[in-house]
This record gives sequence, C-alpha cells and structure tokens, in this order.
Amino acid sequence: MKFSSFGEKYTGRSGIVDLMADLGEALHTRPDMISMGGGNPARIAAVEKIYKEHLVQLLEAPDGAYEILGKYQSPQGDERLLKQLAALLRDEYGWPVTDRNVAISNGGQSAFYVLSNLLAGRFSDGTHRQIQFPLVPEYLGYADAGLEADFFTATKPAIDILDDHIFKYRVDFDNLVVPDTTAAFCVSRPTNPTGNVLTDAEISQLDKIAVANDIPLIIDGAYGTPFPNIIFNEVSPYWSENTILLLSLSKLGLPGVRTGFIVASEALIQAYATANTILNLACGNVGPAIAGRLFENREVLTISSKMIMPYYRDRALKTMELFIEALGDIPCYVHKPEGAIFLWLWFQQLPVTSARLYEILKAAGVLIIPGHDSFAGLENDWAHAHECIRVSYAQDDAQVRKGVEIIAREVRKLYEKA
Amino acid sequence: MKFSSFGEKYTGRSGIVDLMADLGEALHTRPDMISMGGGNPARIAAVEKIYKEHLVQLLEAPDGAYEILGKYQSPQGDERLLKQLAALLRDEYGWPVTDRNVAISNGGQSAFYVLSNLLAGRFSDGTHRQIQFPLVPEYLGYADAGLEADFFTATKPAIDILDDHIFKYRVDFDNLVVPDTTAAFCVSRPTNPTGNVLTDAEISQLDKIAVANDIPLIIDGAYGTPFPNIIFNEVSPYWSENTILLLSLSKLGLPGVRTGFIVASEALIQAYATANTILNLACGNVGPAIAGRLFENREVLTISSKMIMPYYRDRALKTMELFIEALGDIPCYVHKPEGAIFLWLWFQQLPVTSARLYEILKAAGVLIIPGHDSFAGLENDWAHAHECIRVSYAQDDAQVRKGVEIIAREVRKLYEKA
Repeated sequence: MKFSSFGEKYTGRSGIVDLMADLGEALHTRPDMISMGGGNPARIAAVEKIYKEHLVQLLEAPDGAYEILGKYQSPQGDERLLKQLAALLRDEYGWPVTDRNVAISNGGQSAFYVLSNLLAGRFSDGTHRQIQFPLVPEYLGYADAGLEADFFTATKPAIDILDDHIFKYRVDFDNLVVPDTTAAFCVSRPTNPTGNVLTDAEISQLDKIAVANDIPLIIDGAYGTPFPNIIFNEVSPYWSENTILLLSLSKLGLPGVRTGFIVASEALIQAYATANTILNLACGNVGPAIAGRLFENREVLTISSKMIMPYYRDRALKTMELFIEALGDIPCYVHKPEGAIFLWLWFQQLPVTSARLYEILKAAGVLIIPGHDSFAGLENDWAHAHECIRVSYAQDDAQVRKGVEIIAREVRKLYEKA
Repeated sequence: MKFSSFGEKYTGRSGIVDLMADLGEALHTRPDMISMGGGNPARIAAVEKIYKEHLVQLLEAPDGAYEILGKYQSPQGDERLLKQLAALLRDEYGWPVTDRNVAISNGGQSAFYVLSNLLAGRFSDGTHRQIQFPLVPEYLGYADAGLEADFFTATKPAIDILDDHIFKYRVDFDNLVVPDTTAAFCVSRPTNPTGNVLTDAEISQLDKIAVANDIPLIIDGAYGTPFPNIIFNEVSPYWSENTILLLSLSKLGLPGVRTGFIVASEALIQAYATANTILNLACGNVGPAIAGRLFENREVLTISSKMIMPYYRDRALKTMELFIEALGDIPCYVHKPEGAIFLWLWFQQLPVTSARLYEILKAAGVLIIPGHDSFAGLENDWAHAHECIRVSYAQDDAQVRKGVEIIAREVRKLYEKA
C-alpha cells in the first residue's frame, strides 16, 4: 500500500504510539507488568464514586439518556457548559473570558493537533513556521503532531542542582532566541514529563516575549489549574488574551471520556471549532455532561484540591524517597516534584541509552518512558536526553515499591558493569 | 492571526460546518425551528431505553466506572471488543476477518479524515493522488476532509426516471474513467444524502475496477450493514480484502458517544491505529463499552432490523407521500428511498439555487441541507447540483408534516414567481 506524505509522517515510529501500545498491553493484556510508563491516572475510589453517581443520575433524569447518548454536541460545545466554565474562570481567577473564549475538544492531544497545525507548518505564501518549546524536555505526545518536518524548535534548559539527589530545570532566557519563523511558544505547566512547574516569573516573562514577537503562548494545563490542579507548590494560574490554555478531564480521573477544553481569544476559538468540525464532526457528550455537574457547584475545585492533588503529592514524595534510598550511591538526580503524576530521573553518564534502559526494564517487568522522545525540536543530539527516564507513580503503593526496586537493581547492574 | 495552509483550508466556509452549526442551533437554542437538516438520528424510545439500561448496568458493575471512565482505550481498540465484532462479521456474513482487521475510531468523520489523508494528497515523490467518488451526490462531510486542494474527483451519475415523481441514480460505468492519480474509490452505502443504495452488481463491479487499478474501495456503512442496517430493499453486505468498510454507532442512536469502526486489511488497520494515536491519543470508552454488550448476544442485529430500520422505512414512505401530495404539479422528483434517514428532492429547473432555497426555508422556519455541497470532485459546475435538497425525516411526525407543508409552500411561490 502506498501512503501519502501525511501517511508516511503519521505511520512511522513514534514515542507516543509506543507509550500507548505499552499502556494498552499493561492495562489490558499483561496485568503482571508493572506500569510506570503511560499516563493513566491513579484510581482514587472516592473520586471514581462521585463520577459514577453523577453519570448514573444524568442517565436516570428525564431525557437524560437522549441528552448524553442520542444527540450531537454543537461545534464549539454546549453553550451552557461553555458559560459555566467561563464563569468559573472569571470568578476564581478574574480572567476576562466569556463562553466565546472557550471550546470543547476530544481531549488535549486532539486539540493540540488541530491548534498546532493551524498555527505552524507550511503557509500559502511559501514560508514555514514552527512551534517553539522554550524549555525541553516537553511532552512526547507533541513530537509527532506536526504535519510538516521541522515543526518544532527548542531551547535547552538551565539545570539547577538543588542537593545531592534533586535538580530542577529553568527556562534559559539568556539563550532563548526567537526566530522569525516561530509561530507560537508552547509549554506544559505542570510539565509532562518532568513534574516541573514553571514559575510565575517564567510564565510572565515568556508571555511578554511572545507578545513582543506577536505570537501566542500555548499553556498545556492538562495537569494544572483550575483542574486537576496537580501542583504541589504555590504558583498563580495564568491567562491572557495572548494565551491558548488547554485543559482536560483526563487527569481528573476521566481519560475514558476524551474531553478537553481550550481557553483562548475569540478568533482562535472560532477557527478551532470550524476545523474540529471538519476533522471530527463533533465531540462526545459524556465528558461534557459530567463536567457540567462538576462545574455547576464548583465541585471540580474541591475534588482537585482536596482529593486529587494531595493524593499525587503524597505519592510523589514517597516515591522520591523510595528512589533516593534504593539508588544509594548511583549518580542519579530526581527532578524536584512540583506537579503532574511523574518523577523524572536523570542518571548521570548512564552507561547505556535511555532507549536501551527501557528495553532492559521492560524485560525485567517494569514499563517506564525513556526520556529521549521528550526533546523534540533540539537541533543537535544532547547526551542528557539519553540519560533520563519518566516514571509514573500513579499505580498502587505495592506496585510502585516493587517497580522502584527493579529499576534500582537493573540500573545498578549497568553502572557496575561499566 | 496568521494561519497555515492547514489553517486556511480548515477554517474556510464549509458545508459540514454550516450543517453542524444549524443543527446545534436547532437542537440547543432554537427549539421552534423545524430541523430537517442535520443528521441527528431519530429518538426511538424503546431503543434509547436499551442503551440507558446497558450503560447504567455497566457503571454499576464492579470496576465498571473505572473501565469506562478511568482508563485509556488501546490504540487499535479493546481487543475483546475487536474480537467480538470480527466474530459477528465472520458468523453473519462469512467475511474472513479477525480482530486484526478491525479498529475503533472516534466516529466516522474522524476515521475518514485519517484514512483519506493516509491514502491521497501529496506524496513524497512529488506526485498527487485523489479520492474518487464513482457517483455523486455524496456525503458533504467528505468535501473538506482533504489536506490538499483537488483532493477529490467524481463522476456524474446516470439518472433513471422511475415514475412521475421518483428517480434513482446509477453509477455511470460507461463514463467512469479511473485516472492514474486515483488513490481510492469512495462510496457511502446507503448513500448520504440521497437514500440511494448501490446495487450488489454496482458494488461488485466497483471493487473489480478498484482491484484492477490497485486501489482500495472505501464503503462508508454509517447507515448500512450490519448496523444500523437502515436499508429498505434486499442487498448483500460486502467486504473484501480490498475494501475499507466504515461503521458507526451514531445512527444506531448513539451519536453522543463518537464511536465508529473500520474493517480493512491488517496493514491498513495498523497504519490507521498509529496515525490515530498521534492525532487523538485514544478513542473514548463509553461507545465501545455499550457496543460490547450489543455485540455479545448479537442484540445489535435485532435492534437494527426490528426496531431501527422499520422505523425509518415507515417514515421514509410516509414523508415521501406527504411530499408528493403537497408538491402537486411542482416539477419535483424524490430519489427512491432505499435507505439512510433522508429524502433527496430534485426540483427540476428550480428558479433559484438550492443555496438560496436553503436561506428562504430557514427564514420560514425549516432547516434543510442544500444539495450543492454534495458534489465534491466534479470538474465543472452542474445545474442539477443546484436543484436538489436533502431533507431528514428523523424528527417527530407533526414536525415533519409541518416542514413538508412549509417547503411545498415556499417552493410553489418560487415557481409561480418565475
């Protein structure tokens, strides 16, 4: 079978495809595998119960099944829901948004595909523009989204060593060059895969540079505020007319409904809704219906701050302690866990590549994500990119404990052999 | 804001966007409007009840909420469900398919976007290939799917006048030329927008020509077999290793879950699953979960044949009679209703374009779909394309009756004025 350029682009080897295949294997066909790879959120029984009750109540209401199952979502999304979300953002954060600044998506990945390709790639005047990551590592799911080659540019981070075992990335503003060909900045906050949370100063500086260069700043808030708010330190939510904020229900514990939101300028929302209709016809109703209940009484905020965030914060700290203890004198730094649901480990001068380490660990019964796919846009290969792995701590305690032991054991062998 | 070529392509004027915007308006904000435009399926209370009960039972089962809401679907789709669907197709039709021939999609539109762009458009060797409609009118949702310009080619149909008020399209094999640049044939069966059902002879002939030209035959079965089986005459289901069959839960009454299926060669399924993961990460779980219950005991077949198909068949015939009576001596032909959920009306030498008629009817309180967007791929404008409209009869009886009256009244005025 002959495939188009689109076909060649999207059927090749891809980090996100490997990740989802592994996740599928771990979740569905090999329950013996310790899954510290994919981004499946943790099961939090009390939260699961809330969603289940809402959905059953929605179905049992008069016309409820019809509303959820039997009709198409409007292109931009149900107006009442958009108004609810806009009101929540206005009331909580003072952002000047209305329902015309908000749209529904089939999850964050789908939104990023549409938005990034609207803004970057090939232009009708023959030019070519790129999405710029002001700091990598960034989410590996972005890496293959672009229709065109050379779709991303990126800047290496500054690295602060905070103590014997902990480090943190910073945006290296001194070396942040914005070429004419940049179409938008893009950051995830909290950052997938590192658990980094860009500071208020970093975000405000980035938006200032973006405005000066007449480009939007995409902030992927899949783990951020106002929901699921998996942020462990004090930072301020951020939105400006120049910002494209992506939100998602997935890490709230609802990945199965494929629902995300975009908060942006009216012109961009309009463009997105049109493109999304052509590509996908409509978004699903189940996620938006549950979201409507959670937004109405602001329950979404208490679920996030009182149930979800503390759960991951505790797991992050415990897992970090487990790693630091198990790794002993192995030259390993953990990125300071400030948010999201992962730890990011940096094995200095790891004797094999992270890709090889992934294979070794898979054979030993643990799935992790090798780091090298998280550096899209860097012009030259960088040794650091092959020394890092992403580890999810969303699975249950016993699994994580066993996973940490296996990782430490296998890595120790590698350093000892070298 | 500057948009890329992708952006210009997908944010321009589009028939499917107008349709979904109208549908949203009619369903959500202007309930006084008679909606005979969009493809929302009918409410069939007994069917709705079945889905609701399945979903509530699924949620109430141990781990049920987690399975549906709390985890990601595998890239190709849940293996158990794929096996169930493959078994159904093998047992019912004798097709040589396994779970490796089936994948899940976020609905038919999303599947068509991915598949058509995999097969056609720009190629890395500099060539350009197109999707060919062997017969137009075809589904207007295809018209804007292609990433590239000149994405479709099409052949005018042969027209058989069956009696004073009824006509039927046929594939005009005498004039069907297959250029070297054709990447695939594409037909919907039953055809949206006309209610035509390609005969067994036509389908087998098309596949023969496709095989001879080394191109696949895409059959969009959104209204077809095995579900929802909205086909009123006797035809045989068709699949070959050369066929790409698209199925959907939408017209089964479940458009809100955004779930479709692709049945194709293993190589194509693999390519689709990879591309879909990059574009959308995963499909939703709710539709597949309900489908699993409906496939398991083959309930989906009885719902389709005993509850859904007869409902639309009765409505089609009744609505056709209403039109023929109301239109009187207006020179109008109705396409023989053989399937799907629409009537296709051809007003010979209509004094205005169908686009203008759409505006007139909208002002008079009825939404219909003007026909001209259903002729994508034709090289030259064709008067016939501006003389047709698509009318849905899925709404309740009183609404449809009133809609027919308004349409007849307004069209009569146009002919009288001319």
